[in-house]
Amino acid sequence: MEIAPPGLKGLAVADTELGSVRGSEGFFHYRQYDAAELARHHTLEDIWALMINGDLPPAAAPVDVGHLRALPIEVGELVDACAARVGDPMTTLRLGLLAVADHEGRGPVLDRTGDQIHGDAIRLAAVVPTILARHHRQNHGSAPIDPDPSLGHAADYLRMATDAMPTDLAARAVEQYLVATVDHGFNASTFTARVVASTGADLAGALVAGIGALTGPLHGGAPSRCIEMIDEIETPDRAADWVRSQIGTGGKIMGFGHAVYRAEDPRGVVLRAAAERLGGDLVERAAGIEGEILAVLAEWKPDQRIVTNVEFWAGVVLELAGLPRAMFTPTFSVSRSIGWTAHVIEQARVGKIIRPSARYTGHPISEVPARI
Amino acid sequence: MEIAPPGLKGLAVADTELGSVRGSEGFFHYRQYDAAELARHHTLEDIWALMINGDLPPAAAPVDVGHLRALPIEVGELVDACAARVGDPMTTLRLGLLAVADHEGRGPVLDRTGDQIHGDAIRLAAVVPTILARHHRQNHGSAPIDPDPSLGHAADYLRMATDAMPTDLAARAVEQYLVATVDHGFNASTFTARVVASTGADLAGALVAGIGALTGPLHGGAPSRCIEMIDEIETPDRAADWVRSQIGTGGKIMGFGHAVYRAEDPRGVVLRAAAERLGGDLVERAAGIEGEILAVLAEWKPDQRIVTNVEFWAGVVLELAGLPRAMFTPTFSVSRSIGWTAHVIEQARVGKIIRPSARYTGHPISEVPARI
Repeated sequence: MEIAPPGLKGLAVADTELGSVRGSEGFFHYRQYDAAELARHHTLEDIWALMINGDLPPAAAPVDVGHLRALPIEVGELVDACAARVGDPMTTLRLGLLAVADHEGRGPVLDRTGDQIHGDAIRLAAVVPTILARHHRQNHGSAPIDPDPSLGHAADYLRMATDAMPTDLAARAVEQYLVATVDHGFNASTFTARVVASTGADLAGALVAGIGALTGPLHGGAPSRCIEMIDEIETPDRAADWVRSQIGTGGKIMGFGHAVYRAEDPRGVVLRAAAERLGGDLVERAAGIEGEILAVLAEWKPDQRIVTNVEFWAGVVLELAGLPRAMFTPTFSVSRSIGWTAHVIEQARVGKIIRPSARYTGHPISEVPARI
Repeated sequence: MEIAPPGLKGLAVADTELGSVRGSEGFFHYRQYDAAELARHHTLEDIWALMINGDLPPAAAPVDVGHLRALPIEVGELVDACAARVGDPMTTLRLGLLAVADHEGRGPVLDRTGDQIHGDAIRLAAVVPTILARHHRQNHGSAPIDPDPSLGHAADYLRMATDAMPTDLAARAVEQYLVATVDHGFNASTFTARVVASTGADLAGALVAGIGALTGPLHGGAPSRCIEMIDEIETPDRAADWVRSQIGTGGKIMGFGHAVYRAEDPRGVVLRAAAERLGGDLVERAAGIEGEILAVLAEWKPDQRIVTNVEFWAGVVLELAGLPRAMFTPTFSVSRSIGWTAHVIEQARVGKIIRPSARYTGHPISEVPARI
C-alpha cells in the first residue's frame, strides 16, 4: 500500500485551471492572471466571471448577480428562526445555503447538467452576503434589509450588514479584500468542497462542508484576531515590548508569518494600500505597529523572512468599513464561496469519487467475545 | 511535484486503529473484531463503546446514551422550523447538529481537551435519531415524540420515527443494520469528516461535512432504491426478464455489485439473516428475486463475481421495521455518525492539517487586461 506524505503535504491530488500559489515568489494567480493585480484593477464581479465563466469580461460573459442575492421568503424566515436561537453566523449560513438549494430543487451535481451546475454555483455564492447580513441583524433584533440589485456585491453586502450606504472608498476596499480572497491554492476548505462534490452530492452540501473547514483555527483566515491585537498594543511605541513578551511566553502574534509566503504576502500588500487610502488614526497606528513587529521578528529569527500576512491589513480594512468583528471570518466566506463553487464545477467534470485508503495500525484481529 | 493516483485510490492517507475492509476476503472489522460477527452478537451501544472507548464492555467503559438523545428546547424549536420549510431530513440534521453544538458551547476541537472531544462525540452522535425522527414527524404535521432513555438507541429511534413501540425482532434487525454500517474503511464521508477535523474545526462541522458527502450518489448507501426495485419487479418469475431488459438498455440494477467485495458483502449476509428472521411475503419475494438476479448477472459476466451488496437486504429490513423510505438514507447517518465521531477523535490526536496541493494545468500567466 502506497503511503501519502503526512497531511498530504506537497502531494498534487487534482489538476486545476483555477490558479495556484507560488509562495517563494510572493505570487498567486486566478487562472492566467496575477491575483493581486486583479484586486488592484478589477471588480469582484469581473473575477467571478473569470472563475466561473473562464475569463474576464468581455472575453467571457459577465456575471449578473444583483438579482440573485434575494432569498426566497421561506428561507428568509428560516434564517431568522436560526439567527434568533444560534449565535454563530456560519451555522445560519450553512442552513441558509442548504435551504435555498432545497427550496429551488438544486439536487445532486451527478444528476445536473453542466448549465444547471453553473446556475447552482452562481446562485448559491450570491446569497452568502444576504444570509450573513440577515443573521447579523436578526441576531441583534433588527429587521432584515433586502438586497439592492443595482449595487455591486461588496457594496450591497456592506449596506445590508451595517444598515448604511458605504462610501465608494470603503466599498472598494472591501471589494479588494474579497477579490484577494476568492481562492488560494488547494487549501483544506477547497479540498473538502471538492471531496464532497466528487461523491456527486449537491453543490450546497459541498459549500457547507467547505465552510466547516474554513471555521477551523488551523485553516487560517480570522482577521478579527489581528484587530484585537492592535487594540491590545494600542500604539507603535508599545509594540516591541508586547511582541517580546509574547515571544517570551510562547504567545501568538497574529497576522505575521505564512506557511508558503516568504518574500511577502501579496494579499497583505494590496490590503495595506487599500487601508492607506481609507486613512485615519487606526491605519497610522497599524502601520507603525506592523513596522515594530516586523523589526522584532527579524531580530528574533534573522534567517526566516517573516512577512505580514493577509489577516493583518484585512482586519484593518474590515474594521474601517464598519463591519462588526463577529462578521470578519464570515466575510471571508463571501468571497471564498465563489472560489469553492468554481472548484466544484471543475470537480464535477472529473466525475470520479475521491476515496483514499487508510493503513490499519490497530490490534491484530481476534475473536469476538460472546455477549448476546 | 508528486502526483497522487486519480481519486487517491489505493493511497493510504492516514493511519487508523478503527478498522479496515478486506474486500477480497469478504471481511471488514471494527478495531480487532470481525464487524459482521459484532452485528450478529452485540448491541449498537457495545459497538459505540468499542469505537469511542477502545474496546467492547466490560474491557472498556460502556456508553450510556439514553439520556443524551434529548434535544435542548431551543434546538427542538429550530428543528421544527426547518422541517416545516425544508423537505430534506439531511438538511435539518445538519442544522440540528450545528445548533446543539452552538447551544452547548462545543467549540473547535483544537481548543478542546481530549475528554471534551469525547463528550462532544458521544453527545452529537446521540442526537442524530432524535433530530431525524422529529424532522419526519414535523414535516408530516405531527408533534415530536421525546426520546425514552430506558430504550436502546435502535428501538428508541424506531419508536420516535414511527410512533409505535417496535417489536423486539424489528428493533434488533434495525440494530444489526446500524451495527453493520457504523464504519467501512476510509470512505469519502469519513475522509471528509477527517479533513474538516484536521483544520481544528468543531466536531459538529466535521459531521455536517461528512453528511454532505454521504448524500452523494457515488458514495452509495441508498437502500430505498432497492426496495423500489423490488416493488417494480414484484415477483421472482419477473426478475430475469427485468434484469435482462435493464442490461439491454444500460439501466441500473440496485443492490448488486460492490467496489471492493468480490466473494460476498458480509453486511448483506448479516442483513439477509435479519430479514429472514422477520419473515413474510416481502422477504420471500426478495429472496427469490435476489436469486434470479444473481443468476442472470453470473451468466452475463461469468468472470466477475457480482455479489448482493448491503443495500439490497438493508432496504428490506428497514421497510419491514416500518421506517418510511425517505428515512432510509438518513438512517444510515444514525450509525455512520458514530464512526465519523470515532475518526474525528483519532484525527484530533494527529493535530496536523490535511492540506494537499493541486497541479496547475491552465493557461500560462499573462498580463491582466486594464479595466478600472
